[in-house]
Amino acid sequence: MTNPVISNSVIRRLPRYYRYLGDLKDAGYTRISSKALSEQMNLTASQIRQDLNCFGGFGLQGYGYNIDDLRKEIGHILGIDAPKKTIIIGMGNLGKALAQHLKFENKGFILTGLFDVKESLIGQMVRNIPIRSTSTLDEFCRDNKPEVAILTTPKEATHALSDQLVKLGVKGFLNFTHYDLTASHPEVTVENIHLGDSLMTLSYRLSEK
Amino acid sequence: MTNPVISNSVIRRLPRYYRYLGDLKDAGYTRISSKALSEQMNLTASQIRQDLNCFGGFGLQGYGYNIDDLRKEIGHILGIDAPKKTIIIGMGNLGKALAQHLKFENKGFILTGLFDVKESLIGQMVRNIPIRSTSTLDEFCRDNKPEVAILTTPKEATHALSDQLVKLGVKGFLNFTHYDLTASHPEVTVENIHLGDSLMTLSYRLSEK
Repeated sequence: MTNPVISNSVIRRLPRYYRYLGDLKDAGYTRISSKALSEQMNLTASQIRQDLNCFGGFGLQGYGYNIDDLRKEIGHILGIDAPKKTIIIGMGNLGKALAQHLKFENKGFILTGLFDVKESLIGQMVRNIPIRSTSTLDEFCRDNKPEVAILTTPKEATHALSDQLVKLGVKGFLNFTHYDLTASHPEVTVENIHLGDSLMTLSYRLSEK
Repeated sequence: MTNPVISNSVIRRLPRYYRYLGDLKDAGYTRISSKALSEQMNLTASQIRQDLNCFGGFGLQGYGYNIDDLRKEIGHILGIDAPKKTIIIGMGNLGKALAQHLKFENKGFILTGLFDVKESLIGQMVRNIPIRSTSTLDEFCRDNKPEVAILTTPKEATHALSDQLVKLGVKGFLNFTHYDLTASHPEVTVENIHLGDSLMTLSYRLSEK
């Protein structure tokens, strides 16, 4: 079903489709035209048709899209039906916010472990999971084989930590740190979230006006 | 200095340039070739030259870039030298993490107010700023005229809240909520951060492999 020529921007739109279709489903709708979907999503109808055609096309002429089918199909393309064991390292406010608020199970992930170096945090329960000492990471990974790590650690600590995690078999990273994981480990999959960069982009767009 | 035809991807790279140049400056370097900069940043040298040419071009043939000058110039383009008063609404773990860890001052912002509806949070100090009740927002905005709001509120609360803030003169939003601010207020500048979408994109890229 996946296709190597799918552009970055299409891939970035897929989660939005998935979210919107979920909202429509929750609101009781069963089908939608590409025109109506495009208005909701602030895209053109032809862009939506093109995007979905990348994956084989789902709409029927004159009928539009069956919301539930399309949502399931996009969920499948996104790998949401293949849950990946996930750990968070760095359980300060950001780590706690992520552990508590992200709907991992609806997005293709199962949260299985939380880690920090700080003595005062170790043993605290977040979402029914105890925060463990980072010193137990080797043992935990050998026993539980997490595939994904979410990093909110300081930049200085992240170099050694990511080397360790890659050796332990972690294949995907959600990286909130400023450490450039892709440069040191091109073999793993990294999604970077640089909150500071988003601030600067906002600053630019405001200055531009 | 700014230019309406500058592409989104160039704009998104500017904060990265700014960060890397800051790291190089901190490490004591004074100049760098586009080749060396490109290797550090995982871009091609010609892409860097093209990007910077959008803003008038800064490099000298055979010399490369003066790190401090280029960084200042990019900072100016990003509007970092024109600090914008900023408030955070929603001071749960995510709001606290943002207030404590983001380097607002280095990125064109001054954090001036923190707000929440939750009684138990009101009066707590974060970064020497008290958390205020959201019910005092009108008064605070009239007195302090913040230009930017960072929203970490629940989706249900965000509709009315954003209407209120736009009326009070807020012109830029860093939006962590699932509420589609751009659709309801096309006149303001919005930078969306959908952490859940980043998770789904990571899931897609992992499934693809």
